[in-house]
Amino acid sequence: MLNPELISLDNQVFRCYLGWSAILVLKIFATGIYTGLMRFITATFANPEDLMSPKLKVKFDDPNVERVRRAHRNDLENILPFFAIGLLYVLTNPAAFLAINLFRAVGIARIVHTLVYAVVVVPQPSRALAFFVALGATVYMALQVVLTAAF
Amino acid sequence: MLNPELISLDNQVFRCYLGWSAILVLKIFATGIYTGLMRFITATFANPEDLMSPKLKVKFDDPNVERVRRAHRNDLENILPFFAIGLLYVLTNPAAFLAINLFRAVGIARIVHTLVYAVVVVPQPSRALAFFVALGATVYMALQVVLTAAF
Amino acid sequence: MLNPELISLDNQVFRCYLGWSAILVLKIFATGIYTGLMRFITATFANPEDLMSPKLKVKFDDPNVERVRRAHRNDLENILPFFAIGLLYVLTNPAAFLAINLFRAVGIARIVHTLVYAVVVVPQPSRALAFFVALGATVYMALQVVLTAAF
Repeated sequence: MLNPELISLDNQVFRCYLGWSAILVLKIFATGIYTGLMRFITATFANPEDLMSPKLKVKFDDPNVERVRRAHRNDLENILPFFAIGLLYVLTNPAAFLAINLFRAVGIARIVHTLVYAVVVVPQPSRALAFFVALGATVYMALQVVLTAAF
Repeated sequence: MLNPELISLDNQVFRCYLGWSAILVLKIFATGIYTGLMRFITATFANPEDLMSPKLKVKFDDPNVERVRRAHRNDLENILPFFAIGLLYVLTNPAAFLAINLFRAVGIARIVHTLVYAVVVVPQPSRALAFFVALGATVYMALQVVLTAAF
Repeated sequence: MLNPELISLDNQVFRCYLGWSAILVLKIFATGIYTGLMRFITATFANPEDLMSPKLKVKFDDPNVERVRRAHRNDLENILPFFAIGLLYVLTNPAAFLAINLFRAVGIARIVHTLVYAVVVVPQPSRALAFFVALGATVYMALQVVLTAAF
């Protein structure tokens, strides 16, 4: 059932995983760059060697910078485990329709999560919804992988 | 020696990696959900749009929330590298008995780490022991992968 | 074009990915150990159960500890996505010369990043340069993977 031929561009499930993983890597990096931009805009630098002017002091509590940092950390907590479990889920040879839509759900929900968290703050439950759509899809994949390993 | 057929359910080492990786993904997510619960219990919210009542203010220093966040971050620092190196270690075709017990050691030690850190605080050196068992096993895998790549 | 035989020690691109990934896993762990050492040197402990003496109190703002923690977090933000995208990039069957030098660039730049950030503080733009060399190489890989998935 599980075999290495699943890792092939001919397997549309793997191809979908490949595309969304790469997009989400770029999305994580974009959030990192956005943190840096926000540091310059607000002149909030965490290291003495980063200070652009002798008048500035290190600062850790700018709310705009901290907001982007929380969005970024939430990515690490949720997208990075997806990279691992998504690949293993492809190897369980899931039904293509379901798997492809799960990958789309994770990809779109995590992009929306960043937008409503760090770019334009949208009232709750928008961020919570985006968070739980991506989490639910990833948990489902992890449960399928546990079942495949166990039986 | 190293070949893609190792990525197969017939390879009990890969199967063990598959199962423990999925369990640890679920464990990381459980810690994330636990952070959220702790935020509600202690009414500690980091974003203005998360405040449930106009009387609340954003708060960043609740010791219970921060403790779970430290446990969660420690997971990111230690479990996420395991996902990458565990798969590569499987591809070096290690002895099954050793590899399976290393995966079990990482899986059990990281679950214990969260329990004694964030659920029921157990005096040291319990957390340090759990930390170093998982770290030692993962470092061993990484060294084996370096040796495989070099020779 | 993309096929599982690329995951083989006979493929020097995969072999290079294998080696640098394992070295970077060890580098991340070294930064974690260094954080612990710095905590002992400066007697900065975040948990009551970690305090070595009843005279100590929990402390969160030692600048040396926080500096290493920022370097460590920067690793999570940049090296962990590389583990995922590097493997997928190998599967796109890239030209060996380019791929091998991209892996070397990421590996060396991320080691330099930690050294100039957390070990011996070197004035900017040394850290920024190390950061952007690794980021640029990883973004290039991600774009190649997106193109492979799309066409």
